[in-house]
Amino acid sequence: MRASPIQPTVDFNADGEQHGFLKLPHSHDVSAWGAEMIPITVIRNGEGPTALLTGGNHGDEYEGPIALSKLAATLKASDVRGRVIIVPFMNFPAFRAGTRTSPIDRGNLNRSFPGKPDGTVTEKIADYFQRYLLPLADYVLDLHAGGRTLDFVPFAAIHVLPDATQQARCEAAMRAFGAPYSMRMLELDSVGLYDTAVEEAGKVFVSTELGGGGTATVQSVAITERGVRGFLQHAGIIEHEESSRNAPRTTTLLDMPDGTCYTTSEHDGLLELCKDLGEMVDSGEVIARIYDAKRTGAAPIEYRARRAGMLAARHFPGLVRIGDTVAVVADVLERGIPVTV
Amino acid sequence: MRASPIQPTVDFNADGEQHGFLKLPHSHDVSAWGAEMIPITVIRNGEGPTALLTGGNHGDEYEGPIALSKLAATLKASDVRGRVIIVPFMNFPAFRAGTRTSPIDRGNLNRSFPGKPDGTVTEKIADYFQRYLLPLADYVLDLHAGGRTLDFVPFAAIHVLPDATQQARCEAAMRAFGAPYSMRMLELDSVGLYDTAVEEAGKVFVSTELGGGGTATVQSVAITERGVRGFLQHAGIIEHEESSRNAPRTTTLLDMPDGTCYTTSEHDGLLELCKDLGEMVDSGEVIARIYDAKRTGAAPIEYRARRAGMLAARHFPGLVRIGDTVAVVADVLERGIPVTV
Amino acid sequence: MRASPIQPTVDFNADGEQHGFLKLPHSHDVSAWGAEMIPITVIRNGEGPTALLTGGNHGDEYEGPIALSKLAATLKASDVRGRVIIVPFMNFPAFRAGTRTSPIDRGNLNRSFPGKPDGTVTEKIADYFQRYLLPLADYVLDLHAGGRTLDFVPFAAIHVLPDATQQARCEAAMRAFGAPYSMRMLELDSVGLYDTAVEEAGKVFVSTELGGGGTATVQSVAITERGVRGFLQHAGIIEHEESSRNAPRTTTLLDMPDGTCYTTSEHDGLLELCKDLGEMVDSGEVIARIYDAKRTGAAPIEYRARRAGMLAARHFPGLVRIGDTVAVVADVLERGIPVTV
Amino acid sequence: MRASPIQPTVDFNADGEQHGFLKLPHSHDVSAWGAEMIPITVIRNGEGPTALLTGGNHGDEYEGPIALSKLAATLKASDVRGRVIIVPFMNFPAFRAGTRTSPIDRGNLNRSFPGKPDGTVTEKIADYFQRYLLPLADYVLDLHAGGRTLDFVPFAAIHVLPDATQQARCEAAMRAFGAPYSMRMLELDSVGLYDTAVEEAGKVFVSTELGGGGTATVQSVAITERGVRGFLQHAGIIEHEESSRNAPRTTTLLDMPDGTCYTTSEHDGLLELCKDLGEMVDSGEVIARIYDAKRTGAAPIEYRARRAGMLAARHFPGLVRIGDTVAVVADVLERGIPVTV
Amino acid sequence: MRASPIQPTVDFNADGEQHGFLKLPHSHDVSAWGAEMIPITVIRNGEGPTALLTGGNHGDEYEGPIALSKLAATLKASDVRGRVIIVPFMNFPAFRAGTRTSPIDRGNLNRSFPGKPDGTVTEKIADYFQRYLLPLADYVLDLHAGGRTLDFVPFAAIHVLPDATQQARCEAAMRAFGAPYSMRMLELDSVGLYDTAVEEAGKVFVSTELGGGGTATVQSVAITERGVRGFLQHAGIIEHEESSRNAPRTTTLLDMPDGTCYTTSEHDGLLELCKDLGEMVDSGEVIARIYDAKRTGAAPIEYRARRAGMLAARHFPGLVRIGDTVAVVADVLERGIPVTV
Amino acid sequence: MRASPIQPTVDFNADGEQHGFLKLPHSHDVSAWGAEMIPITVIRNGEGPTALLTGGNHGDEYEGPIALSKLAATLKASDVRGRVIIVPFMNFPAFRAGTRTSPIDRGNLNRSFPGKPDGTVTEKIADYFQRYLLPLADYVLDLHAGGRTLDFVPFAAIHVLPDATQQARCEAAMRAFGAPYSMRMLELDSVGLYDTAVEEAGKVFVSTELGGGGTATVQSVAITERGVRGFLQHAGIIEHEESSRNAPRTTTLLDMPDGTCYTTSEHDGLLELCKDLGEMVDSGEVIARIYDAKRTGAAPIEYRARRAGMLAARHFPGLVRIGDTVAVVADVLERGIPVTV
Repeated sequence: MRASPIQPTVDFNADGEQHGFLKLPHSHDVSAWGAEMIPITVIRNGEGPTALLTGGNHGDEYEGPIALSKLAATLKASDVRGRVIIVPFMNFPAFRAGTRTSPIDRGNLNRSFPGKPDGTVTEKIADYFQRYLLPLADYVLDLHAGGRTLDFVPFAAIHVLPDATQQARCEAAMRAFGAPYSMRMLELDSVGLYDTAVEEAGKVFVSTELGGGGTATVQSVAITERGVRGFLQHAGIIEHEESSRNAPRTTTLLDMPDGTCYTTSEHDGLLELCKDLGEMVDSGEVIARIYDAKRTGAAPIEYRARRAGMLAARHFPGLVRIGDTVAVVADVLERGIPVTV
Repeated sequence: MRASPIQPTVDFNADGEQHGFLKLPHSHDVSAWGAEMIPITVIRNGEGPTALLTGGNHGDEYEGPIALSKLAATLKASDVRGRVIIVPFMNFPAFRAGTRTSPIDRGNLNRSFPGKPDGTVTEKIADYFQRYLLPLADYVLDLHAGGRTLDFVPFAAIHVLPDATQQARCEAAMRAFGAPYSMRMLELDSVGLYDTAVEEAGKVFVSTELGGGGTATVQSVAITERGVRGFLQHAGIIEHEESSRNAPRTTTLLDMPDGTCYTTSEHDGLLELCKDLGEMVDSGEVIARIYDAKRTGAAPIEYRARRAGMLAARHFPGLVRIGDTVAVVADVLERGIPVTV
Repeated sequence: MRASPIQPTVDFNADGEQHGFLKLPHSHDVSAWGAEMIPITVIRNGEGPTALLTGGNHGDEYEGPIALSKLAATLKASDVRGRVIIVPFMNFPAFRAGTRTSPIDRGNLNRSFPGKPDGTVTEKIADYFQRYLLPLADYVLDLHAGGRTLDFVPFAAIHVLPDATQQARCEAAMRAFGAPYSMRMLELDSVGLYDTAVEEAGKVFVSTELGGGGTATVQSVAITERGVRGFLQHAGIIEHEESSRNAPRTTTLLDMPDGTCYTTSEHDGLLELCKDLGEMVDSGEVIARIYDAKRTGAAPIEYRARRAGMLAARHFPGLVRIGDTVAVVADVLERGIPVTV
Repeated sequence: MRASPIQPTVDFNADGEQHGFLKLPHSHDVSAWGAEMIPITVIRNGEGPTALLTGGNHGDEYEGPIALSKLAATLKASDVRGRVIIVPFMNFPAFRAGTRTSPIDRGNLNRSFPGKPDGTVTEKIADYFQRYLLPLADYVLDLHAGGRTLDFVPFAAIHVLPDATQQARCEAAMRAFGAPYSMRMLELDSVGLYDTAVEEAGKVFVSTELGGGGTATVQSVAITERGVRGFLQHAGIIEHEESSRNAPRTTTLLDMPDGTCYTTSEHDGLLELCKDLGEMVDSGEVIARIYDAKRTGAAPIEYRARRAGMLAARHFPGLVRIGDTVAVVADVLERGIPVTV
Repeated sequence: MRASPIQPTVDFNADGEQHGFLKLPHSHDVSAWGAEMIPITVIRNGEGPTALLTGGNHGDEYEGPIALSKLAATLKASDVRGRVIIVPFMNFPAFRAGTRTSPIDRGNLNRSFPGKPDGTVTEKIADYFQRYLLPLADYVLDLHAGGRTLDFVPFAAIHVLPDATQQARCEAAMRAFGAPYSMRMLELDSVGLYDTAVEEAGKVFVSTELGGGGTATVQSVAITERGVRGFLQHAGIIEHEESSRNAPRTTTLLDMPDGTCYTTSEHDGLLELCKDLGEMVDSGEVIARIYDAKRTGAAPIEYRARRAGMLAARHFPGLVRIGDTVAVVADVLERGIPVTV
Repeated sequence: MRASPIQPTVDFNADGEQHGFLKLPHSHDVSAWGAEMIPITVIRNGEGPTALLTGGNHGDEYEGPIALSKLAATLKASDVRGRVIIVPFMNFPAFRAGTRTSPIDRGNLNRSFPGKPDGTVTEKIADYFQRYLLPLADYVLDLHAGGRTLDFVPFAAIHVLPDATQQARCEAAMRAFGAPYSMRMLELDSVGLYDTAVEEAGKVFVSTELGGGGTATVQSVAITERGVRGFLQHAGIIEHEESSRNAPRTTTLLDMPDGTCYTTSEHDGLLELCKDLGEMVDSGEVIARIYDAKRTGAAPIEYRARRAGMLAARHFPGLVRIGDTVAVVADVLERGIPVTV
C-alpha cells in the first residue's frame, strides 16, 4: 500500500512539547496547491507508555476539543513519563465547519476506517491514524458527545471484546475516567468504526459521550478534564493528584442491550420529549409526542417506551424528521461504583 | 394603505374552536400560484377579553410552539370566557426551516414592525399582526427562547414604559406568568420591534426567554405551560386552578441596566464558558476563554466580566465568531417574589 | 425621477429591421462592470400604429419566447405598416435561468410595476417598460403560460376595465388573437401588475395563458403564432392572410368570477388530479387526491370542487405543497364564438 | 459479503396487509442517528406467486407512485393469491426531493446495481433489492416515466434476452400490461441497470415509460392502473375482471433499433419541437429548431430526423443544453395488437 | 433620522494610536445577538487636518487593504499632526468573503450612499460613513483596484466638479498621490456613489484604481504606499521625506471622455485580448477575440476598438459573458507630468 | 475491462480537418438522457507521427484553451504531415464552470488517471484518454497555467524518467517548445497523474505552466503559440518557419529539488508578497507577510525563504488560508540556453 500523503511537522520521537500539524495536501478550486492542516501536539519525556487522545472525530462535539486544547497548552514534558499525542480536532475540516461530517467529502470519520491513502480527505485522515498513529499508542481515548442533533447523559464507554484480558484493561481505564455514567456496549454495527480499528490493534481503548447539542458547559468540560487526567494517571503517564484521591466519586453502570432501547420517529414534526435525560421511564409510558406543526388542533402522535430504564440519550433539535432516533432508554446495571484510577 | 393580501380561513367572531390558516399568497419559482399557510386557532365563548398568544416569532425557538400546539389541541370553548387567538408558529416559513429568520427573505419578524402589505413575506406577516390581530387583543403574550445560538435562564419580561399604569398592568401579568426569573428591561433599541408595536397599541404585553439552544426540555415546557395558564387566568379568560393555588412559587427579579452586562467576542474560535447559566460572577472574573483552534499550544484569549451579577444568557454553539455576544450578566434585584395570578 | 440606466442599442424611430439589446448595467461579484443584455427587435416601416409584443415576463414560460423569436427572425419591414417592438425574453435573467423569477433578485417582473430606475434589476426593467416602451405603443400583447408549476387550457384574456370603450377594444383584440379559449377577468389583486400598468396607460392590451409545465408543444406554439398574427392584423400592422379568412375558427368564453373557482392544498404530498384540463366537473365532485407519500396504506385526502365548471388550470408537478393552487374551475360562458380579425 | 444495514419493519412471510418501512440507518449532519425510511407494503394470502411492484426508481416520475399508493391503500389480502410487495417510492430520498437522482449522493438508483451494503445510500438501496427483495419475487414490474426532462408516448417494454423462454414470458406480461404502446428493446448499455439485475435473476420483468414532464394526468394514471391490474392478473395473483374482458384494447409495437433513432443537441438554446409525441416523421424532415436566445434576429439551428418513424420521446423543458437528447424516433413494427391478460 | 446602530470602540478625539472596531449589530441565523466588527484605527496628535483613508470598499481589491494595514500597524501619533482615520476593509463582510459585494445582502457599498440607519447591513455602513465619519474628515482617499474581474493600469483619479476650487484642490492631491497614471473623469452615473457623497460634502477627495485580478503585487503595493504617504504629506499631516524629494517621478494624464472608450461583449465565450494593459491601440484595430468554446473549428468573434488610445482596463477572467466590459481605451492627454507633494 | 461509454463523433483515421465531440452520456437531474460534449479536432494528412495537444486539464487555466482554439480553427490538413489531435478543454465541465475541478464530481482530472469507464464523469474522461487517445499518439503536449489560485513564471517542463533515452527525447521537445523558462522535475507524488500515464506509455511528453491567476495575456498566449508550433515542428508534423529560424531565443533552466522550495501558510489572512515573480530571493529573506485582517494594529506574520533562488510561483489571491502554498523558490541551473526546434 502506498505511503500516506500526510506529513507531520512534529517529530514523534523527540522529547519536550511540540505543537505542529498533520499536513494533508488538498488541491481544490480555491487552492490549487493547498493543504488541510490538522493541529497536533506531542509531549514526550523519555521512555514510557504512549497515550493517543482525540477530540473532534465528529466536528460538532466540543468537550473533547476544549479539554484537549487546554491540556495541549498546559501540559509540560516534565509532568509526563512516556508520551502523550493530542489531536483535539481529528476531523479538522468538519470541526472548522461545526458539522458532524466533513464539508469536503461529507465523510463521517468515525465510520471511515481503515481509510485509504488515495481516497477522500476523510479516508486519508483515517488511514493516517490507522497506519501511523495507532501503532505508536498503548492507550487510546476518543472523546465524543452528541453533537448538534443528540444529547446524552455523560458517560465513558467500552465494548464487549472477544479478548477478556483486553476488555478488563479497557474496563479499568473506563473506571479511571470516572464519568458519572459508564457504559458497556455490545457493538452491533462495527463497520468502519474507529473504535474497532483501535481495539483490533490491541490497544486499551475508552470512548465517551459527554453531553451534546453542539455546545459544552462548565460541568461537562469539568467531567471531561477530570476523566482525561484519570485516564493518563491510570496509564502511568502522569502522577496521581492528591485531590483526586481525596474526593471519592462514583459512576453508574448502564447497558443498551438491544433494539428496544431505541425509539425511532416515523413522523416529521415538532418534538415534545416527555422525560428529561437521566429520568426513569416505565415500559409503555409516553416518552415523546410529535406535533404535525403544519396545522393546529390535531392531537400529537405519541411514542411509548418499549422498555423500562433511564433516558440516556435524546434527539436534541426542536424539529424531528422521520427516521430520527427520538430517545434511547438504557438499563441501569449498577449504581455507586467507586471511581478508581 | 392597501389591504393585507393575507386572508384568514377562520372567523374571529364565531364561538367555538376553530383551527385554520392565515393564507398569504406567495408566487415563486416552485409555485406560481402558491401561498404560505400560517396555522391559527381561535377559541371563543361569548363576550370577554381577548388574549393573543404567539410562538415561533423566531423560527428556532421551541417552548412557545410546543406549549401553544398543546393548548390549541386541548382548550375548549367551554373552558373560556372571551377569546383566545393562538398562532404557535408566527414566522411560519422560518419555523418550518428551523431558522431564526425567514428562508424566503431572511426577515427577522420580531424586527419587521409595523410591516408592509406590499413588502416582503415577513413584512406582510408583520403588517397583518399590526393592523388586523393586535386590534382584536387586550392581552398579548409572545413566547421566545434563545434559539440555536443563545441560551437563557428562563424568564418572563416587560419593558419600562412611559405609561406607568400600562407598565403596572404588564408587570402584574408577568408575575402571573410566574417564570423562575422575571426581567424588567429598558429597551435601548426598539426599532421595528413587535414588543414596541404591541405596547404602543396600549396592550398588556409580556414576552419571555425560556431556554435556548434550538431545543426544549420537559422542564422548560412545563414552565411555559404553567406560565401561559397563569397569564390566561390573570386575564380572566380561564378559571384559576386549585393546584396553582396550592403550590406557591416564587420568581427572582433581574435587571440588565446597561452595556457592561454584555460581553462581545473580538475573536473567532472555540468557546469555553467559565460559568454556567444561573451562576454568580464577580466583576473582573474570567467568564470565558476562546481558543484559536487552528493550532494547539497557544494560550486562549480570556474574557472577563465587566460587572458582577448572574450569568443570565450565553452563546450556545461551541464555536464563536467575532461579534457574537458571549455572555450576559444580569443584576439580581430581588429573590423570592411570590407568583400571584 | 432619474433617467433609466438602461440604454437601447436600437433606434426606435429608424425604418427597417433592427436586432439589438436593452443594456442594463449590473455590477456584481462575477463582473464588476457587467450588464444584463435584453434582446430586442424593432421592425418599422413608416407611420402607423405600434405593437409591443412580449414573452418571458416569467422566465419559465415558452410559447411567447418561441413564437416571438421566430417572428423577430422572419418579419420584414416591408411586411409592416407602422412598428413592431418585440421583446421575447422580457425578464431575461429569469428566462436564461429557466425560472419564474429573476435569479438576481428573485423579482417577479409581472408584479414589479411601475418599477424604479434605482431599484433592483427587475425593478429597473419594469421602470424601462413603464416609462420608455409603453409610451411608444398602441397595442400591447404579453404572452404567458403556466410555467413549470401550472398548466392551463390555452386562452387569451382581458380584464374588466372601468372604461367601457377601452374594454371593447381589448375584447376585439382578444377575439382576433383567437385562442381556443378566451377569458374575461375581474382582477382582484392588481398590485404591481404589468397588465394594470398597460391598461392604465390606455393601451389595447391582451394577455394570454397558452399551456404550461415549463415546455411548449407544436400545438401550443401554433396557437400562439396564429394569435400573434391575428393580433397584428387586427392592429392593422400586417396584412390579413387569405388562409386565415378561409379557415373559420371559434373560441370558448370562460370566466373565473370568484374565490370558489380555486382549490388550495392544505397538505404536502403526492398529487393525483381526477380531471384533466378541459374536462367538466360537478360541484362537490372529487377533483384531486393527495397522498401523504411518507408511508403507504393510508387513504389520501380528497379535495372536492367548490363549484361546477371546466378544469381550466392545474398544479403541474407531481408533488404538491401546502398553499399551492391545486385546480381552477372556470365557468363556461359561451362556446363557438367565431374568431374575427 | 456483509449483511445489508437495511431492516424491514414488515414480515414478508406473514399473511394480511402490512404497511411499514425499509429502515436504512444514515448518520449525517442534521441527524447523527438518523435513518431513511422507505415505505413498503406487503400483502400476502397463502401460497402463490410473488409480484414486486416498484415506482419512484427515479424520483421525478409520478405514474408509478400514484398508482402504487392507491393499490397499497386499497388492495386486500383477500383479493390476492400469493404475495404482492409494493415499493411506490424506491429511491425515496430522490422522490421526496422531486429529483431524478438522490439528493444525498446524486445516485441514479436505476444504474446502481448490484449495489453495495457499505456504499452510498443509493447503493445500499440497490443492494437490498438485489439480495433481499428480488429473491422473493417471481414477477417484477418497474414503473417509469420521462421525469422532469423527458416526455414519452406511454409504453411498456421488455428487453431482447438471451433466454428465449424468459423473453417470451416477459413479452406475454408486457402484453398483459396493455399500454397503448409496447417496446421491444435491445439494451446497448446495461451497466448497473436494475432491469438487467432482475432479468439475470431469471424473473419475469416488465418496465414502462408512461408519460413525463414531472407530472401525471388522469389519462396516464389510468393507463398505469389498468396495466398494473393486467400484470397481476397475468401473474395469477388477482382475479380477472369482467370489465377487462369486455373492453378489448390494443397496443402498438415499437422498436428503437439503433443510434439513428436519437437526435442529440449540439447547441444550447430555446427549443422548438416540430413534431408532437405520436406524430410520424420522415427521414430528413426538420424535427426541431434551436434558437440562440441570447439575441434576436438570427435563424435557428435546424435538426433533421435521421430516420423515418414515430416521435416516441422528446426533451421536455423549453430550454435545451448541448448534449441533451432532443427527440427519439421509433420504428412502428405493428399496430392493433390485442391486449390479452 | 434615527441614530446609527453602529458603535465605535475608539474615541475619535483622543490622542495616540487606537485600534478598535465599528460594531454593527446583526441578528441572523447563526448569531441571534451577533455583530459585524469593522476594524478601524485612529491616530491623532493634537489639532490639525483629518484624513480618512479607506480600502476594501469592494471586498476583492487588495492594494488598499495591504497598504493601510501596514500603515495602521506602523504609523505613530508622534509622526502625525492632526488625525488619520484608517478603515482598511470598509465593506468588511465583502472583504472577508473576498467578493466585490457583501455576502449578507449583495450590497455594492460604493453605490449605496447615502445609506440608511435601518436598511441593509451595507446601507448601515454607508450611513455611518455619510453621517459620522465624513464630517470628521478634510481629506479623503479611497483605494480601489479592479477586483477579481477587471484589471487596470495603476492610476489615481478625480472627478470634474462643479466647484473649480474644490476640483483644483483634488487635482493637487491626486498629483501628490503620484501614481504612474492619473485620470480626470466626468462621472456619467453618480447614483449612490461614495465619491459623490464625499465630494458633495466638500472634501478633498482622491480615488484610485491600482491593479486588479483579485491580487496585489510588490509593484502595485509600492505604488499604493508611496501614494498614501504623498497624500498625507500633501495634507500636511505627515512630514515630507527626503527620499521622495530626491527621486522625481512623473505621471501620465488619461481621460475617458465618452462611451466609445468602452467595448462590451455581446457574446459568451473564451476571451483572447489582443493588447496588454498600457499598449496603444488604433481605432478599428482588433482588440479582442471571443471563442464560442463549446465547439472547435469556428472562427472567433472579433471586437474592434471604437477609438484610438491606450488600453487602460480589461476584463480579467479567461471566460467572458455577454454584457461584460471587455476593454477600455483611454485618451492620453499628457505624459511626464512631475509628481509634486 | 468494459468499453468506454464515450463515443467520438470524429474518425481518427480520416484525412482532412474534422471538428466534433467526445460524447459522454450523463444522466442527471436536469437531463435524464444528457451528455457531456467535449470538443475535439482531428487534422490528418496521410502517414506520419501523431501529436496529442491538450488544454483545460484544469478548468481555470487559459493559455492552452486559447492557443489550441486558434490552432484548431486555422490549421489545415495541407499544413500537416501525420496527425494532430486537439482537445482544448480536456475537463470540459470544469472549463465551462471556470473552476480547477469538475462541478459534477469535483474531480481533478490531472490526478484521476488511469480513470474508470464506470466511474465518475472525470474518471470516464481519464479512462478515454488512457485507453483510446494515448495509444494513438507519439508526441503529447499538455498546456497548464496556475489557474485562479497560483501564478507562475512561464515554463515548459519534463520529468526525470527512468529511461534515459525517453528523457532525452522529452528534453529535446521541451527545448523546442522554447518557453522563457524550462524545468526539469523529479516528481515526488505521481499518484494518478496524467503526466505519469503518458510517460509510462512511452510517449514524448512535455507539460507547461504558462502564467496564472485565471486569465491570459497577449504575452503569455504568444509564448504558448510559439511553443506549440515549435513542438509540432520538432515532431516533424509541421514545417519549420523561416521566422523562427531567424529570431534566436533562449530559455533558462530551473529546478525545484526538494521541499525547502515551498513555503506553506500556517495562517489565514491578507497576503503581502515581498517578491514578484522572477525576482531573486536570499535564504532567510522575508518573502511574504500575512495580516490577521480581522483587526488593525497588529504586526503581520513574516514568512522567510528557506532557500535562495528565484520566485517561480506564488499564491495569487489577495487572501490566503492556512495550508496554501504561498511561494515557490526555484534554483536557477543555467541561463541563456538556445531554443532549437
